[in-house]
Amino acid sequence: MPGDNNSRVLLSVTGIDRQRWRDLLSARRDVVLEPDGETDPSIRYAVVWKQRPNVLSKLPNLKAIFSTGAGVDHLLNDPGLPDVPIVRVVADNLTRHMTEYVAWRVLDHHRHGMLYRSQQARRIWQEPPQQQASETKVGIMGLGNLGRAAASALLSLGFTVNGWGRTERPMEGVVTFYGEAGLTPFLNATDILVVLLPLTAATAGIVDYELLRQLRRDNGLGGAVLINAGRGKLQRDADILRALDDGTLKEASLDVFETEPLPEASPLWTHPRVFVTPHAAATSYPEHLVGPMLDQMDAFDRGEPLRDLVDRKAGY
Amino acid sequence: MPGDNNSRVLLSVTGIDRQRWRDLLSARRDVVLEPDGETDPSIRYAVVWKQRPNVLSKLPNLKAIFSTGAGVDHLLNDPGLPDVPIVRVVADNLTRHMTEYVAWRVLDHHRHGMLYRSQQARRIWQEPPQQQASETKVGIMGLGNLGRAAASALLSLGFTVNGWGRTERPMEGVVTFYGEAGLTPFLNATDILVVLLPLTAATAGIVDYELLRQLRRDNGLGGAVLINAGRGKLQRDADILRALDDGTLKEASLDVFETEPLPEASPLWTHPRVFVTPHAAATSYPEHLVGPMLDQMDAFDRGEPLRDLVDRKAGY
Repeated sequence: MPGDNNSRVLLSVTGIDRQRWRDLLSARRDVVLEPDGETDPSIRYAVVWKQRPNVLSKLPNLKAIFSTGAGVDHLLNDPGLPDVPIVRVVADNLTRHMTEYVAWRVLDHHRHGMLYRSQQARRIWQEPPQQQASETKVGIMGLGNLGRAAASALLSLGFTVNGWGRTERPMEGVVTFYGEAGLTPFLNATDILVVLLPLTAATAGIVDYELLRQLRRDNGLGGAVLINAGRGKLQRDADILRALDDGTLKEASLDVFETEPLPEASPLWTHPRVFVTPHAAATSYPEHLVGPMLDQMDAFDRGEPLRDLVDRKAGY
Repeated sequence: MPGDNNSRVLLSVTGIDRQRWRDLLSARRDVVLEPDGETDPSIRYAVVWKQRPNVLSKLPNLKAIFSTGAGVDHLLNDPGLPDVPIVRVVADNLTRHMTEYVAWRVLDHHRHGMLYRSQQARRIWQEPPQQQASETKVGIMGLGNLGRAAASALLSLGFTVNGWGRTERPMEGVVTFYGEAGLTPFLNATDILVVLLPLTAATAGIVDYELLRQLRRDNGLGGAVLINAGRGKLQRDADILRALDDGTLKEASLDVFETEPLPEASPLWTHPRVFVTPHAAATSYPEHLVGPMLDQMDAFDRGEPLRDLVDRKAGY
C-alpha cells in the first residue's frame, strides 16, 4: 500500500546495506529514510539496526519497532527508545545459517581440523585417535530458537548435547541445566561450549576465564573448546587468550569479538588455535527478512497481534 | 570357544595394529598369526587387511574371509584368493565416522572455510556472499551404505543432494542418476562432488580431468569442489592438480591418494586450496568391529547364513 500515509515506515540502519532494505520495503510500503521523518505523524513502523540514539523518540504515532538482526542489545541501549512493542527477527533462513555454522565448527574441532591443517603444512601423515561423536559433549548456552535448532542438528550427527538457559526449557535428547545453580554442573559436563546467548546486563562478560576454567578439559578431544556465535560483549577477549595460552582452552572458533571489526592489533587474528570469522555465522539477508516483516505490519494494520516480541525486562 | 580346533581364526593384516586385533579376537576364538597356520586344517575363518598374496590359498578348510576395512579391492587383487564368501565390514561406527567427515568437509567448502582462513592470516574482516544450503548441490558418487548415510545427514542440514550409482537405488529426497548414461547429467548438476565409490576395474581412475570438467562451476560457491573419501586409486592426483590450477576445480578435500602415505614431494601437500587428511575419514577401530565379526562366525558355526557378503563379480 505505497501512498497510504497512515502506514509509512522509518528506516534507520547503520553498518548494513540501507539501499537494499529500502528497495525491498518500498515494494509494499512508503519508506522514509532517517534523518528525515523525525516527527512525522504518518510513520507507524520503524525498521532499525544500530540506530542513532533518540532517533525514534519524537515519532508521535509509532506502533512497533522491527529489528533487522537477531540481537536487540543495541536497540535496548537507546535512552530514547519509545515504549512500543519490538519485533525480533525470526527467520528460518537465519536459523538455518546459524545451525550450519555451529555444526561446521563443532565438527571441525571434533575431527581435529586444526591439527590436520598444521600437520599438512609440515607434510605429516599421522592420525590422532578419533573419538565417537557420542563421546564429545557439546554444551549450548542459550536455548532459544537458535540454540534449539543447533542442538537438534548436533543430536542428528550423534553428539551428546547439554543445554543451559536462564529459565527451564527442556528439550528431548538434551540434558538441560538452568540458572546460576546449573551453570557449574553444565560447564563441568561440557567439552565444546557453544555460546548463543543474548547480550543483556546479566550475560555481559559471562564468558570469562572463571567460566572457561570450569569446562571439561581432561577429555578425549585433548582439551576444552569455545565457540562463540552470540555477541562479542558476552566474552572477554583477553581471558580467552589467557585460557588458550595456559591450556585451559585447547581451541576456539570466534565469530564475534568485544570490538568489531576485530582490531588489527588483536592477537586473536594470528593465534594458531583460533578460527576467526567476521560476525558472519548468520547474516541477515533482507531478501529473506523483509517479506515476513511486511506481513506482520499488514496483519497489525488489520488488528491482529504482533508475534515474536522482545521481552524488555529480560533484555531479549 | 578358545581351544575348539574346528574354529580357529587366521589373522593376516598389515599396516594396522595387529596386536589389538589379536587380543580382541582371542577373547572368543583361537587366533593363529600369519605366517603360521599356512596349511592348518583347523582354520575356518580368516580376518585380513592387505594380506600377503597367496597366504590364504593353502588353507584346506577355510569357510569365510572377513575384511577389517570398508574397501575390499586389496583383497580381490590377491591371485591366490580362495573361492569362499567374503564378509565386508558394515559397522554403525564406521558409517557414522564417514558421515561426520562428509558433513564436515561439505560444510567447510559451503561456508568458505578456506577463504576465511586465508583472510584471517592477513587480518582481513570481510564476508563473502553466503548462499543457502539448499542452493549448494552436493553430488554423491556411490550409493551404498556409506553414501546413503552421508546423503541423509546432508539432507538434514538442508543441502540439495544428488546421487550416482552403478545400478538403480532410489532414495527419498535425493535426485538419483545411474550408470554411464547418468554420469554427465549427474556431474552437470553437482557443485560439490563427494566420492564414496568402491575401487573396481570399472571405477579405477574415474576421477580424472574429463570428469571434473563436467562439474557445475558457474555457481554460487564460486566454483566446483571435490571431496574424495573413497579410495585413492579412484582419482588421478595429477588431474586434480591441473583442474585446481586452471580453475576447473575451486577446492578439494582429499582423504585418499594414488600413493599412500602421500609422498612428501606431492604438490597436494602445500596446495592452498587442498585439505589433506591421512586416510582418516572413517578408520576401522577393532573395538567396534571385532564383536560383530565374532557374532557372524558363531552364527555360521550354528548353520546360519553369512550377511554383508561381497559381490565378487561387481568387485565390492
